[in-house]
Amino acid sequence: MIIQLTNSITEEQKVNLFERLNKNKFAINEVNTQLEKYLVCIGKSEIDIREIGHLPGIKDVHIVSDSYKLVSKKWKVKDTSIDLGNNVFIGKDVPSIMAGPCSVEGESQIDKIIAHLNQQNIKILRGGVFKPRSSPYAFRGLGIDGLKMMYEKCKPHNIKIITEVMQVSQIEEMLPYVDVFQVGARNSQNFNLLDALGEIDKPVLLKRGVSGTIEELLSSAEYVFSKGNEKLILCERGIRTFETAYRNTFDINAIQVLKEKTHLPVIADPSHGVGIRSFVPKLALSALLSGADGIIYEVHEKPEEALSDGQQTLNFMESALLVEKIKLLYRSFNFN
Amino acid sequence: MIIQLTNSITEEQKVNLFERLNKNKFAINEVNTQLEKYLVCIGKSEIDIREIGHLPGIKDVHIVSDSYKLVSKKWKVKDTSIDLGNNVFIGKDVPSIMAGPCSVEGESQIDKIIAHLNQQNIKILRGGVFKPRSSPYAFRGLGIDGLKMMYEKCKPHNIKIITEVMQVSQIEEMLPYVDVFQVGARNSQNFNLLDALGEIDKPVLLKRGVSGTIEELLSSAEYVFSKGNEKLILCERGIRTFETAYRNTFDINAIQVLKEKTHLPVIADPSHGVGIRSFVPKLALSALLSGADGIIYEVHEKPEEALSDGQQTLNFMESALLVEKIKLLYRSFNFN
Amino acid sequence: MIIQLTNSITEEQKVNLFERLNKNKFAINEVNTQLEKYLVCIGKSEIDIREIGHLPGIKDVHIVSDSYKLVSKKWKVKDTSIDLGNNVFIGKDVPSIMAGPCSVEGESQIDKIIAHLNQQNIKILRGGVFKPRSSPYAFRGLGIDGLKMMYEKCKPHNIKIITEVMQVSQIEEMLPYVDVFQVGARNSQNFNLLDALGEIDKPVLLKRGVSGTIEELLSSAEYVFSKGNEKLILCERGIRTFETAYRNTFDINAIQVLKEKTHLPVIADPSHGVGIRSFVPKLALSALLSGADGIIYEVHEKPEEALSDGQQTLNFMESALLVEKIKLLYRSFNFN
Amino acid sequence: MIIQLTNSITEEQKVNLFERLNKNKFAINEVNTQLEKYLVCIGKSEIDIREIGHLPGIKDVHIVSDSYKLVSKKWKVKDTSIDLGNNVFIGKDVPSIMAGPCSVEGESQIDKIIAHLNQQNIKILRGGVFKPRSSPYAFRGLGIDGLKMMYEKCKPHNIKIITEVMQVSQIEEMLPYVDVFQVGARNSQNFNLLDALGEIDKPVLLKRGVSGTIEELLSSAEYVFSKGNEKLILCERGIRTFETAYRNTFDINAIQVLKEKTHLPVIADPSHGVGIRSFVPKLALSALLSGADGIIYEVHEKPEEALSDGQQTLNFMESALLVEKIKLLYRSFNFN
Repeated sequence: MIIQLTNSITEEQKVNLFERLNKNKFAINEVNTQLEKYLVCIGKSEIDIREIGHLPGIKDVHIVSDSYKLVSKKWKVKDTSIDLGNNVFIGKDVPSIMAGPCSVEGESQIDKIIAHLNQQNIKILRGGVFKPRSSPYAFRGLGIDGLKMMYEKCKPHNIKIITEVMQVSQIEEMLPYVDVFQVGARNSQNFNLLDALGEIDKPVLLKRGVSGTIEELLSSAEYVFSKGNEKLILCERGIRTFETAYRNTFDINAIQVLKEKTHLPVIADPSHGVGIRSFVPKLALSALLSGADGIIYEVHEKPEEALSDGQQTLNFMESALLVEKIKLLYRSFNFN
Repeated sequence: MIIQLTNSITEEQKVNLFERLNKNKFAINEVNTQLEKYLVCIGKSEIDIREIGHLPGIKDVHIVSDSYKLVSKKWKVKDTSIDLGNNVFIGKDVPSIMAGPCSVEGESQIDKIIAHLNQQNIKILRGGVFKPRSSPYAFRGLGIDGLKMMYEKCKPHNIKIITEVMQVSQIEEMLPYVDVFQVGARNSQNFNLLDALGEIDKPVLLKRGVSGTIEELLSSAEYVFSKGNEKLILCERGIRTFETAYRNTFDINAIQVLKEKTHLPVIADPSHGVGIRSFVPKLALSALLSGADGIIYEVHEKPEEALSDGQQTLNFMESALLVEKIKLLYRSFNFN
Repeated sequence: MIIQLTNSITEEQKVNLFERLNKNKFAINEVNTQLEKYLVCIGKSEIDIREIGHLPGIKDVHIVSDSYKLVSKKWKVKDTSIDLGNNVFIGKDVPSIMAGPCSVEGESQIDKIIAHLNQQNIKILRGGVFKPRSSPYAFRGLGIDGLKMMYEKCKPHNIKIITEVMQVSQIEEMLPYVDVFQVGARNSQNFNLLDALGEIDKPVLLKRGVSGTIEELLSSAEYVFSKGNEKLILCERGIRTFETAYRNTFDINAIQVLKEKTHLPVIADPSHGVGIRSFVPKLALSALLSGADGIIYEVHEKPEEALSDGQQTLNFMESALLVEKIKLLYRSFNFN
Repeated sequence: MIIQLTNSITEEQKVNLFERLNKNKFAINEVNTQLEKYLVCIGKSEIDIREIGHLPGIKDVHIVSDSYKLVSKKWKVKDTSIDLGNNVFIGKDVPSIMAGPCSVEGESQIDKIIAHLNQQNIKILRGGVFKPRSSPYAFRGLGIDGLKMMYEKCKPHNIKIITEVMQVSQIEEMLPYVDVFQVGARNSQNFNLLDALGEIDKPVLLKRGVSGTIEELLSSAEYVFSKGNEKLILCERGIRTFETAYRNTFDINAIQVLKEKTHLPVIADPSHGVGIRSFVPKLALSALLSGADGIIYEVHEKPEEALSDGQQTLNFMESALLVEKIKLLYRSFNFN
């Protein structure tokens, strides 16, 4: 059960409410986000929500049968939209496009990418500076300096930055330079990282784990939300199966399932979702047609020279063509 | 290596050619289809195909590095189109739509379905009469009588029939009444059935195995082709993964991979691909956008009363809406 | 619900019983096996089995909640043992060992294998004559002549033969020469083949499908049993997962799960279960320690020259050592 | 290529060596562990190791073709044994047994467990104080106080403690009270945590990821080793597959594969490996028979009252019986 409190609830009203809930043996989790105050009550006993709903200080009450609560569409029916400022949104009627290199490599690379984004009217740059790599001997990214450099270059163009955070201790130094913190597939159940991201006021994009279920992804989102951060975006990026003809099996079904189960925006990552450059554009379009609120993909001036992920990275012409097709799709096709 | 022979090749020319190939220790597989004569030569030794290409009686020669040969796009670059007669094709510019109930249940059901298909201008009826069921105690279909009944009703409307064949001994009795033989996911590596279907002159649609790789699907197609039947269609219908939020994980990547690897038409089955009715239409559209040559889906007047698969079956209104959206997609969107 | 009838039940008693069951809207499946008479009754209505249990002509009644019925341990608590004659059993206190080549290749090969089996006191020879192969161009086995040859050589030694049957039409010609019909992983849900094997009086070993669930394996066994053949053996042979460091992921858990859910004997195939020769012996021992009733493995005089599966085939010395270790394990270790 | 340096290598000798390696365009990773000094050289160019091997200051040189290097058996053929003090080892001839509750719940619970361990002569206590849980509302463990309490109780008995660390910031406060740091399946690719654990001088047990490949597990171990910590133990705990009859699919094959690929000790976790109490003992024995160097399992005075994982936890009698069987297995069975 979720109880939404009014912002003006008095201490006395709260004490009164807690007593009532304790009597029914509910475990009460107090959640104060950037926007609202909630009580998430977990318990086996049943309660008639009408008994509580009319109490002073209470705005709304709902029973939510899912194991995740605050991110469930059973709680909030209306889709959430995330505002990045400068009129850039994720989860609005127009598809959000995030594009950029797998790894930030240097100034000249970023200049060229920004020129490309500007030309295509893409408002969000993706670019990794902390890179999770299977081998300790592989290139691990430029680190915080790369991020600052990216920030300096993006700011004049009002281009927003999404980049991966790998551990709690990086959050503070990254905070001024990041518009969306990305949690990678390997950290999808790094609960301490999720807790810590719940305590900041910046949007967080959660990637589904390599073999994470849809339910696990929603539970990970609940971690962040229940610590106080409502600005959440989910991302399908392909799962691990027996098939080896491509990198990951993009779970196109997951887009529709997620959109039905949660009010959060759902983004598709076609680059990791198939891992083969020539298949990225059609996969991106299919994911949008299935209801994804946007896409995040890898683009590089010369993919064959990229320090990582070159085989799944579009060049500028391919990226421009994809943007063209997305526009065509949205212009001509009735999505509802 | 594939050697395509002229139809006018003489015995002497052939003997000469075989000698040459034997000298190079090739295992020679003679393949005579409805349309052409081929030699599929398997061997480790290398040969300069120019030495052979100019010989009398030879139309074409190619090295095909895939383990499957005749179905490979490396052999035949142009996409294959299957002609079902009465101007009905699978694998042409327009998407092929096959729709109908999971199981044929009786005359009245078929009458209503045919009326629906006519209204929507759908030319191919799917309907099972031999049903593979996990439990021996479940409804196994009406059998050959159901097929004959379906045939009598479809014939006046020039509606084509696709239905599943489960074993070799059924082929002969089904032959007069079937336009496309469907091989189900569970029989995807029933090699005797594939051999037998290679010896008839009717199109065959092969479904991917529940956990079959893309390469295994192509190898199964090679079985049919190499026994003499070129009229082949492949079908992606979802694979088995760890995710339990839906029935099968539709492998949207497989559509593009298959279209790149083979010249055969590729069809999508969104009904089994997700297994939840409300998600079928968008999945169908996404598969078409990814390059599928058509879709096969389940439709029933009253899905909730269907003898099998009701939970994934569209009703007539949903089916009509889907057809409308497919038209819109093709009208407005540039697929190439 | 399963009702076991006495063999002396009269027609009148049966009619009376059927009326009673029909009144409760049960679908009745009459099952007459080599040994017993059963009614498998499927229905939603509840019935007090005491009302039926005392009726004349009835030997036993049980509610079985599993989807499979006759093969369930809820029906028959005592483990089943299969008698192959000449004091050879599968599913008795001693472990059953079945060994031999992947494919029968010729007389001399079989002579040597038989000498090896005799030396090791192994009573069951495995050897394929109909080989399911992914590619139509691969070696498909010696066929029925290979089987006859194997039979002629085994008979004087009272060595039993287990070999794979791939289609219904092979059963009749194979019948005189086979002691156990093996159904391969790819035919694990070839329901027509299962039906047909239910109508003969020879033991059948069912391999689990490449991605078959434990429940599906039990349902496939129910097919054979419900058609009249109680002589059934199940076989775990590894499943398909994301791991590529070996051929299949041997599901050691499945051994214990199967032994808990069914009264049928459970055999392990360590050769396919890992696919790498050096790992076969320890895997065989582990499966036995987990409760498998026996093992089936591949052995060849010169594995490196075998026409198929050489990489997972033991040579004679390795096989002899394995048998030694099995004896040691059983002698010294208390299994209960 | 791995170059092991002598501890007495001079600066000049090192400079000389680096120059030589740089000339061959090797990327050089300097690794100084508790025990030795290594250079891990990654490069495409070939080098004749004899040219280097004789140089002053060099102890050993080997080409290691695996993507992981220092943990590879190609580098170190002899199995590693980890010394926990007080004559407790992991990876010696006798199997290591680690047992205890999923979560530390309180003093009385720990007293009873310690009594049980003492009785069974088990030297290592497992017990979680930081619990990774899918839901943010679930019990997350007693934290550092629970660890200190466990430590106070174990110390007088010389019982060693293994417990899970979830994030970098916990390491320091845990360090005095922990004998083996466990990295859980969900943190298997939390590279920052692995890096940090590489910098301490305490043994680390790495669990395989829920869907981690064997190669990924070895690469994660390489992270820790290459940061300076050689005291590593690997743990197979079951992988995620399509099967739902139990919690995880224990990958028995992985034990043998790991023992072949690495010199590190390999432990089995049968509790998570199957997730059903009655199946834990035979699974433990099978894993040991396949070559595991030890087992880690969950035991609780009253499993049905445990705060987490009760369904897979042994009670004291079951645990005592398991220890008895392990002794019997080792006494009677020749493992080599």
